[in-house]
Order: sequence, then C-alpha cells, then structure tokens
Amino acid sequence: MKPMGPIPPGFGAVNGILAIDDVPVTHWIAEAVRTPLFLYSVSLLRQRMADLRAAMPDWLGIHYAMKANPFAPVVTLMNGLVDGIDIASAGELAMAQAAGVDPVRISFAGPGKRDDELRAAIAAGVTINLESAGEADRALAIAVDLSVIPRLAVRVNPPFDLKGSGMKMGGGAKQFGVDHDQVPGLVRHLVASGADYRGFHIFAGSQSLSAEALIEAQGAAMALAAALSEQAGIAPPKVNLGGGFGIAYFPGDVALDIKAVGAALEGHYQGRAAILKDTAFCIELGRYLVGEAGVYITRIVDRKVSRGETFVVTDGGLHHQLAASGNFGTVIRRNYPQGLVERFAVGDSDSSGLEQVTVVGCLCTPLDLLGDKVGLPAPSIGDHIAIFCAGAYGASASPGRFLGQGEAVEMLV
Amino acid sequence: MKPMGPIPPGFGAVNGILAIDDVPVTHWIAEAVRTPLFLYSVSLLRQRMADLRAAMPDWLGIHYAMKANPFAPVVTLMNGLVDGIDIASAGELAMAQAAGVDPVRISFAGPGKRDDELRAAIAAGVTINLESAGEADRALAIAVDLSVIPRLAVRVNPPFDLKGSGMKMGGGAKQFGVDHDQVPGLVRHLVASGADYRGFHIFAGSQSLSAEALIEAQGAAMALAAALSEQAGIAPPKVNLGGGFGIAYFPGDVALDIKAVGAALEGHYQGRAAILKDTAFCIELGRYLVGEAGVYITRIVDRKVSRGETFVVTDGGLHHQLAASGNFGTVIRRNYPQGLVERFAVGDSDSSGLEQVTVVGCLCTPLDLLGDKVGLPAPSIGDHIAIFCAGAYGASASPGRFLGQGEAVEMLV
Repeated sequence: MKPMGPIPPGFGAVNGILAIDDVPVTHWIAEAVRTPLFLYSVSLLRQRMADLRAAMPDWLGIHYAMKANPFAPVVTLMNGLVDGIDIASAGELAMAQAAGVDPVRISFAGPGKRDDELRAAIAAGVTINLESAGEADRALAIAVDLSVIPRLAVRVNPPFDLKGSGMKMGGGAKQFGVDHDQVPGLVRHLVASGADYRGFHIFAGSQSLSAEALIEAQGAAMALAAALSEQAGIAPPKVNLGGGFGIAYFPGDVALDIKAVGAALEGHYQGRAAILKDTAFCIELGRYLVGEAGVYITRIVDRKVSRGETFVVTDGGLHHQLAASGNFGTVIRRNYPQGLVERFAVGDSDSSGLEQVTVVGCLCTPLDLLGDKVGLPAPSIGDHIAIFCAGAYGASASPGRFLGQGEAVEMLV
Repeated sequence: MKPMGPIPPGFGAVNGILAIDDVPVTHWIAEAVRTPLFLYSVSLLRQRMADLRAAMPDWLGIHYAMKANPFAPVVTLMNGLVDGIDIASAGELAMAQAAGVDPVRISFAGPGKRDDELRAAIAAGVTINLESAGEADRALAIAVDLSVIPRLAVRVNPPFDLKGSGMKMGGGAKQFGVDHDQVPGLVRHLVASGADYRGFHIFAGSQSLSAEALIEAQGAAMALAAALSEQAGIAPPKVNLGGGFGIAYFPGDVALDIKAVGAALEGHYQGRAAILKDTAFCIELGRYLVGEAGVYITRIVDRKVSRGETFVVTDGGLHHQLAASGNFGTVIRRNYPQGLVERFAVGDSDSSGLEQVTVVGCLCTPLDLLGDKVGLPAPSIGDHIAIFCAGAYGASASPGRFLGQGEAVEMLV
C-alpha cells in the first residue's frame, strides 16, 4: 500500500460512518440526492478562524482570498468572519457582491486586469492592487473618466521568495506586481495623481508548512514595506503581508505552527520602523481558511480486478478534484487523505482489515486517479469514498465540463 | 529563446495577419466581440478528414470521439463526415443527440458508467462498450427492465500497449476494459443472455506520432480480436481498433505518417484470420481529427519588464487552455506553437525581429504560463496571441470557472 496524507482534524464518526458535527455524511448524501458532492463544514470553517484569531496578534487583519472557494454560501459565511475579501477578477467581484460583501472591504489583485474589470472595481470602491506601471496609468485614467478617487495599492514583487512554498510568487522575474526598485516612484506618482493611496501588497508564495519560512518572509515583507515607504517619503495606510499558510495534503506533512507565526509577527510589529507606526497590517489567506473544512464525496460505481490489482471506480474524478489527481501544480503525484464513508474510524492506525485498492474516477483517461494503491476497509459498490482537503481549489479549479460529466453538488453544512 | 512546437498546416496570412481561409482572424475577433476566443475551422476539419480517408483503406470506418471537442457545431459537422460518434458519458449522449446524431451511430465507453447512464444509452439504442463483468450484468438487467435487446460490445484490456504513446490505456493492470483472458467467457455470456453482441473495442493508447508503433498495435489488436473470437467461438460483427493518432504539439515533433499506417492496415486486413472475414473494422479518433483545426486567441492586456525579463500578460490562460500551460498530462512543460495574430508569417524561420517574451495568462497563479521565453514580433498591448493545436481538449478540458474569469467564446468558422 502507498501512504496517504493525514485526515484533517474535526472529522468524526457516528456508528462507524464519517460524520461532521455528529451528523453522518450519509445524511447529507441523501439530502443532496446525487453524488459527487462537496460538503463544506460551517463549524470547521468557524473553528479554523477562531484558532487563527487566537494565534495571531489582535492588530492583524485577516482577509479571505475567495479564489480558494467562491461558493456563494462559503463567501457569505467567511465575509462575516474576516476583515476583508480578496478577489482576482470582475467575475469574483460580481460573485462577492451577490454574496453580500461590501465592496469597500474588497481588494483586487491579478496580473491581467482588463479595462472593464478596472472600471467595475473602481466604480464600486474596491481597492486595486496594481501589478504594473501600465495598469496604474489605466486605473488612473478610468478613475478620471468615472470622476472618482480610486483606491490604489501597489503589489510589490519582492526581492525574496517564500522558502519551501508550493508556488513561488516573489523573487526573480515575475508577472506579479511591480519590481521593488520601481515601487517608490510609482507610489509618488499615485499620490501626485490624487489617488487614495492604500499601501502595499507583498505576496511571496503559497502553501508553505514551515513556520520558520513564513516568519522570515513576513519579517522581510515588513522591512521592505518600511524601506520602500521611506524611499517614497510616504507612509502606507495598510500593508498586506500576503499569505502562504499551507495545509497538510500528503504523507509526512505536519500542520503549520501558527502560534509560532503569530508570536513572531508580534515581534516584527513591535520592532517595526517609525514610518509604519500608523500602518494597518493584514494577511491574505485562501487555502488555509477553507481547504481542510471541505470533503469531496463520490460513490463507488464499479469494482474490478485487472491483472491482480483491484480498482474501485467512482462517479467522481479529476473533473471536480483536479489537484487530487496530481495534475495541477504538483510534480510528483501523491495520495490526498481519503477514507470510506461507511466504515470510517478517526485516528485508526490499524491497517489490518484494509484492502489495497486503486481509486479511479469515471473519466475515460488514465489521468483520472484519485487514490493510488491506498488501503480502504473493503470498499464495495454503492459505498462512498471521501477525499479530504477538498475545501479549496476543488470544484472551481477543475475542468467541470470535461467529458460531459457535469458539475458536482456543493453544500455548506 | 526557447523553441515552440510547429505551426499546424493550413493557417495562412493576409496582409501579415493570421488568416483562416484567407479571412483574417481579426475579422472573427470583431465578430466575437470579446476575447478569449476559440476558432475551429470548417475547412481544416474537412481537409483533415479528406486526407485521412485518402490514406486509410475504404473498408475502415472512422469514428469521432467527441470528448476531444464537444462544441455542438463541431459535433454536427463531424457527424456528417465520420461513420460513428463515440461518447464517454450520458452528458455527451445528450449533447450528441442535441447536435443531431442518430443514437444508432453512437458507442459509449467509460469505466464508471452509472445505472442511469446505462439506462439512457440502452433505451436510445447506443452500443455500450462494456468495461467489466459487473457492468455487463448491470446493462443486461437494465435491458430486461426496459424490454429491449441491448447492443453490447466488450472493451478489451489488451496484453500490450501503444509504444511511445502519450497515455497508455492498455497493458498491465488498468481500469479500462476487461482483461483479455476474461473476454471469451464474457462474450459467450452476452450472447447466451440474448444481447445484440457487437464485438470488441481495443484501445491501446493515445497521442502517438510513431506510425511504426501504431501499425504494431493495430496488428496486435486485430490478432487479439481473432484469438478471442476463436476462443469464444463467436465472430465479432465489428472491431474498434482504437485510436492513438497523435498531433505535433512540441518542438521536434514530426507529423504522423498516416499513409504508412493505412498501407499497413490493408496488409493486416488481407491477412486477417478467417473468423474476422465478415467483421467490420473502425478506428476511433478525437484529437487527431480536430486538434490542429482549432486556435485559441487571447488579447494582450499588459506588457511589463520584471528584472530584465519581458512579460506579456493576456486575457486568456489555463482556465481555457490547461494543457498549453503544461498542467495536464505532461511531465515536462514545453511550448505549444503560438504566434502574433497581427504580425504573422507562415513558415518564416527568420528569427531577426523577434523579441523574447514570456506569455502569461491573467490568473493570479504562477502556473498560468502559456509561452515560456518565446520569440514573437514586438507584441504590444491590444495585439492578440494565437495558441495553436487548440481544437482538442481545450475549452472543455480546462477549469473554466477558475478565478471567476468566465468561459471563452467558441466559434466554428
């Protein structure tokens, strides 16, 4: 058998059935009528935010990057728990507004903002994280045309990256943000142009499980914000220190030590430069807030033995959970945490009674692999397989139209 | 500069502008009103089929696997050119029927067919390519329930694979089809159960550019069909020899020699076993029929220099063209063929005047890379970049909801 990632905390079992808040998942399957099904847990989302608030300093704002999970009920819930919502397109702006988010709480980052997107966001009062000098000029011109004062921040391409992160988004040549040495001039230009200058967005990477790396990157971001502000001669009202908090997907992954990160942030804050003394700080998280609160449920349609290997064929697949198949942003495929809904035990490390099976999706492609030689307790046709860590970059980050299989059901429970 | 794949044949230029059938692509961009835009060429689709018919023996049927491109006008056009349509889900069945395909011309393969899918397909008269003994029994029971005689073929997991193919779908333990040694017994069971036994589906792999490998696999498939039929004591009405014909995506790729494949097929046919003397044969192609006839057009929204590297930021990205970003079924990312719509020259190998740029999409992720250090003639904001080989596994095989950017426009022209 090949190992799988750790089951995230908070899931339980009732009479041997996977449960959320002591309600067996089979109840929600019946309610949804059909599978595949994404379940997002209200209590796990709230618990994650409560734990994070407890670990982070009081002065730190926490934003939700809704790209991680744009399901409207999730956005509405998260909006009530966080201090801001980050969007990546005008489409997300419309979704956020439909979910009841006040545009003044929204900031907008993304390297390819079209004029119509800038126009919609500026008109609504959204803060734009500018990605280039050209985008700055387009935003300023649109604001003139709209006769409004635009809320503009500068996304900085820092001279460092987040070590050990899944995706590096700073350091070196990048499409994201403005190279740090170009930033002071741009800030002066924005202020001289009459914009409502909002400060910096400094994002060094994502999906890191190393507190040490995050502490180093956040310290560097704070120091960079100070240096750039001093060079510009202008204090930033706000600095978004970025995200990068990872979750444990794979065998051997250990949960991030957020208490260590919070304590170090307090230290950075106490030692901050004078020019930042009135600056508000926030972090921007997506995956960390919602990823572990979601589970993807798929039904076993067939079971077959091919040349000695047992395959469990499900009605789900990479059209809903591309990342779990190992085809999105990962070089070496490894198994996401997974379990059998009907025979689930928390923290059961006893592998006797487990059968080695390969869990595949229903798509007619060998890429559609959900569990490679995993151990499950006698999975049978009609049983359900739960793929954990499905709360972020699942339904909306997968090719839902592929092979005409249709979208999954999504429920906030 | 890093190389890119070869521009597919059939695209031209009019006054330096990329053209299809001597119509500049800018005409279609204006017609579509917005970008990103997939253009599929009627004449290139027809030309590809004509070339293939000329190279293949007259007795060989050619099927279109609509998973490659399920855009309704493409399916309708292809339906008039081919001898059968292959589907992978009940969703594709509904799309095929909406596009005017007679269900009797349809066959249905896929490892996770649900009961409701089997029911819809059997009721419509579709041929089911059975993937397991369990699926066979479900299909037979559903047919009894419907009081119809089901059209059933057996998908064989052959004891060989398609050498050098992008995706192996035969050989070894697989979720696809029935292990070859189990097939004769299953065939006898189907016939004894009163089914309309349709024969075999033998699919060994996909995306091969080697005529030699395809010839070997097709010969092996024909021999296997004969051996299994002799063991069953039942002649197969039809044998689907699978697909696997690749197209040239990457630097150094050379187009498949279809004449060699056709000539070898004729030889296999002449030498076929007696039990296959009245058997009809077909091949099943998706990518090869439509892949090179499509182009993805995206507009340049920003141009920026970061630490000496020039980035061209487009309004497109991996949400429409996941495979071109290197995130779908490829281990090492390489550049798809691409060009600048407004300054395009066919077969121009003169690299003077080209600028080295990195073409990225609009998504806020470093995965969204369309052209890595490619050479383009002074790409400017407002110009359009054409990514070729976009006719197959593009729009429908990409995460169209990702980051709220919305789907691309699709047009058959």
